[in-house]
Amino acid sequence: MSTFERRDFLTAAAAFAAATTATLAGGGRANAGDVSFMNNVPDPLLADKELPTFKFALEKSKGKVIGKSYGKEATVEQLPISKGIAGVSMQLEPGAMRELHWHATAAEWAFVIEGRVRTTVIDTHGCAEANDFEPGDVWYFPRGHGHMLECLGDEPVHFILIFDNGYFSEFGTFSITDWLGHVPKPLLAKNFGLPESAFDDFPKNEVYFARGKTPPETPAAPLQGLKLPPQTHKYQLLAQEPHAVYKGGREWRVDSSRFEISKTITGTVLDLEPGALRELHWHPTSDEWQYVIEGRISVTLFGSHGRYRTETLDKGDAGYIPQGYGHSVENVGAKPCRVLIGFNTGVYEAIDLSQWIAGNPPDVLATNFGKPAALFERFPKRDVFIADKK
Amino acid sequence: MSTFERRDFLTAAAAFAAATTATLAGGGRANAGDVSFMNNVPDPLLADKELPTFKFALEKSKGKVIGKSYGKEATVEQLPISKGIAGVSMQLEPGAMRELHWHATAAEWAFVIEGRVRTTVIDTHGCAEANDFEPGDVWYFPRGHGHMLECLGDEPVHFILIFDNGYFSEFGTFSITDWLGHVPKPLLAKNFGLPESAFDDFPKNEVYFARGKTPPETPAAPLQGLKLPPQTHKYQLLAQEPHAVYKGGREWRVDSSRFEISKTITGTVLDLEPGALRELHWHPTSDEWQYVIEGRISVTLFGSHGRYRTETLDKGDAGYIPQGYGHSVENVGAKPCRVLIGFNTGVYEAIDLSQWIAGNPPDVLATNFGKPAALFERFPKRDVFIADKK
Amino acid sequence: MSTFERRDFLTAAAAFAAATTATLAGGGRANAGDVSFMNNVPDPLLADKELPTFKFALEKSKGKVIGKSYGKEATVEQLPISKGIAGVSMQLEPGAMRELHWHATAAEWAFVIEGRVRTTVIDTHGCAEANDFEPGDVWYFPRGHGHMLECLGDEPVHFILIFDNGYFSEFGTFSITDWLGHVPKPLLAKNFGLPESAFDDFPKNEVYFARGKTPPETPAAPLQGLKLPPQTHKYQLLAQEPHAVYKGGREWRVDSSRFEISKTITGTVLDLEPGALRELHWHPTSDEWQYVIEGRISVTLFGSHGRYRTETLDKGDAGYIPQGYGHSVENVGAKPCRVLIGFNTGVYEAIDLSQWIAGNPPDVLATNFGKPAALFERFPKRDVFIADKK
Repeated sequence: MSTFERRDFLTAAAAFAAATTATLAGGGRANAGDVSFMNNVPDPLLADKELPTFKFALEKSKGKVIGKSYGKEATVEQLPISKGIAGVSMQLEPGAMRELHWHATAAEWAFVIEGRVRTTVIDTHGCAEANDFEPGDVWYFPRGHGHMLECLGDEPVHFILIFDNGYFSEFGTFSITDWLGHVPKPLLAKNFGLPESAFDDFPKNEVYFARGKTPPETPAAPLQGLKLPPQTHKYQLLAQEPHAVYKGGREWRVDSSRFEISKTITGTVLDLEPGALRELHWHPTSDEWQYVIEGRISVTLFGSHGRYRTETLDKGDAGYIPQGYGHSVENVGAKPCRVLIGFNTGVYEAIDLSQWIAGNPPDVLATNFGKPAALFERFPKRDVFIADKK
Repeated sequence: MSTFERRDFLTAAAAFAAATTATLAGGGRANAGDVSFMNNVPDPLLADKELPTFKFALEKSKGKVIGKSYGKEATVEQLPISKGIAGVSMQLEPGAMRELHWHATAAEWAFVIEGRVRTTVIDTHGCAEANDFEPGDVWYFPRGHGHMLECLGDEPVHFILIFDNGYFSEFGTFSITDWLGHVPKPLLAKNFGLPESAFDDFPKNEVYFARGKTPPETPAAPLQGLKLPPQTHKYQLLAQEPHAVYKGGREWRVDSSRFEISKTITGTVLDLEPGALRELHWHPTSDEWQYVIEGRISVTLFGSHGRYRTETLDKGDAGYIPQGYGHSVENVGAKPCRVLIGFNTGVYEAIDLSQWIAGNPPDVLATNFGKPAALFERFPKRDVFIADKK
Repeated sequence: MSTFERRDFLTAAAAFAAATTATLAGGGRANAGDVSFMNNVPDPLLADKELPTFKFALEKSKGKVIGKSYGKEATVEQLPISKGIAGVSMQLEPGAMRELHWHATAAEWAFVIEGRVRTTVIDTHGCAEANDFEPGDVWYFPRGHGHMLECLGDEPVHFILIFDNGYFSEFGTFSITDWLGHVPKPLLAKNFGLPESAFDDFPKNEVYFARGKTPPETPAAPLQGLKLPPQTHKYQLLAQEPHAVYKGGREWRVDSSRFEISKTITGTVLDLEPGALRELHWHPTSDEWQYVIEGRISVTLFGSHGRYRTETLDKGDAGYIPQGYGHSVENVGAKPCRVLIGFNTGVYEAIDLSQWIAGNPPDVLATNFGKPAALFERFPKRDVFIADKK
């Protein structure tokens, strides 16, 4: 019924495309804290009569493979609905390193599934930190902070990376060998106060996954000595007690209230028993990115105007829920499932359907649904959060 | 004279549309606090030689009507200039309810014109509040918070809703019957721990305006009992003294400094005597949305480059002023007028022409206008704000 | 390899352009603090195989000239890469004034190169300040605050303006004569409580550069008397000690930590001896705009994916570095050089290559570059910042 999309686009196209004498005349909007008209433009992908798919078989995708190391990504290219968050599944074989690099366009949050990994990271005050991670541990690197990741020990390490930008590409970041390989030797020599020969045989192109000796069990001191940042980049998520425990499952959650540096990403691990349900709910302030660590889940998505879609995600699949959209997660497998969930906010917020209902008196619900008030006295009087199988 | 609009668009179109091997290579920008290039792109509608209309006859529009309840909206569809703010005029007949729903893309601010209305609202901590409103009262619901509105007593209630997003659509929000009507009964039963039969005869499609018994005069307790939020959603605007009183009129204003929860919207009520003028001014940090409650006003709009437009708004008409644009409001009717004005900011800011002039010494003004300095000694030495008729 | 740009654009175009019955159904995103999908859309200009030019010969451009006063601008029209920051070189001849005006879409930061200039500015609380500036002094005017600039004394004044919006146009701002020249006299008379004749012979069109008497050496009091703002708009940058002094050069820097009002712009002055180098580094949170005050520099730009570009900037040229992109500045002239640099952030942040290297232990660097660990013991153990000529 609405045609403003068309009018709006044509107006824009005409104004942009016509070689006119029009001036811009103050029509723009400035930066921080502003009410840019572009900020409100709806995603056309979400304006169709049907909801698009919100599932991508991440582990079945090819990705970038070097030896036994790989990176498989889910960005807007693989999963067009996922404009707010991208994810990567990465494995590093023993002796392998995801080389020194930075992301100009996204912060990085990670969860270790298997194996051990070391990171180093530099901040904008020259403070550096090295950390070792085991399964269940989490890291966060602010946007633009230089870092590297390397496998520890004799077994490969597997972890999931979450980025607060769906347009991010793991294969479009800034790697140190790519940079130094293109800077003329005289400039490098001047930069570091070294003879040009110091840079003989440096890589000419991006290495991406470097390979070398197994790292020492204890991190060596950096060249500058210890100069630690005020906030750590490491949080041991699964070493904590879960914040929510129900008969049907449990959830661990970490946002910036517990992990101070993680200002733009919240992460949760959700365990559900067979048949259990993370109930119908929505997130007013963030998108949601899902990765199935174990098991099989059924995810429902409600997009208003009668638009409703259900998809089944298996181990290794990724899912996405746009901000404000109603959804649920149900274990439809025969065994317990574990789901990693990331949100592009440092302050987790959600509203559960059962609690919304419980926040209203029976007479309101009676009028709303056209049913007797007495029916709603039977409804839960608290937040259900995780419902057990029936 | 400028052609960058064209070049920019063609560059974008070429890059987007060509099926190339180009990679994105870190060209994007990330989220919160960022300097996204899109944030600065000017609205092409405001780049023409002439200013577009900034008026829409809201009450004369058809809107959505069910019985004697209706909702009439002014979004970018009806008023293309209004990209920052949308408005809705809504009436509920006795016994009618705007059912439980939430807005994924906008916060809601409201002003009651006539009649009485009750709201319930849930926040992300499970706190719920019920409030009753009379004419002159205001509410604010943060984006994504679930709420309902129902008429109280035997008379219809009429109120104006303001949303901090011009792309908002009142007819594109998430209603509880639309959601539950599409969730399979077994999932609902599991979610609430009830037999499937509990959901027999629930509505299958969106109810929008529900109808039931007249609500009790005192709100009943919610199912979960009282669990009040730290900040109230209600402010009695017209019960306060006006913050500005002049011979020609008065103004009530409420922003987040007085109504803490209202972080993204400021509202004012402006009364002008016949012939009086809210003087020439602009708002550096927000757009402005206008609704004429009583009377007839003449609104001027200045858009730089010699672009100037005047429109007359009658009772029930809506108007819109883009951020930073010069404007004035004059009562051109025979009787006092009352205008409701909303801004998409929680911190009201304005600069009045008379005060700008008064903030400069006569020699500066003399050079600026090419007139004798003595002339400017006759100008007001304070903020005029509301000028009386001559 | 990536085709999502194409798909994304076509999806958007189809959704926008088709005259369909699609509704928007809550697909949008709201304002402040939000995760708008548009915020993450990458700049297509930065997605080509080659990096675009980042240099514009500002002082050689024509600009707007009235008498011996001129304004020459570098916006996205002249320098398409510069979407985050615009710059203007302005000269005012004795007796000339850049008239009272405001910028709806940008804050203004300025650095005086030669001569003396007076400003007046009004804020949203009615506070006004007049300031006199000499070479090396800086001002900052928040977005939308009305101000004027006038030459002091018998010599012309030359200064550089920096705006936190590349789409800004100095020739698309809101000037007081343009406004008042289009408001009917009866409205002006009512606004100021003066007879219509008070406005006889006011300019009918934008004056832009006004000319009058040489201003008094001491600013006269404004009409309203003194009502000073809590934060000053003036900072004497070069009157301070430089914050960084090296054998090869020095740097002065001012952000909001020292100049409280300057919430969206940081400025630096960089002096380099012949052959000296501001080392390879990047800014995680801002774009960078450069203007060569004296000398000749070579600027390198690294854009990932093997994209690397070097350009030589002479006195009067402007340059631009997108957020997160690696770059360096080297004095390649025979004499000392001075570069003015602006950033669209109130909190300066940078990561230098030498410090990143120094923040890692030798074994990590050995694996990364495939070289012996001993090599990296020879690297600097601290931040180089400015490297001397070899």
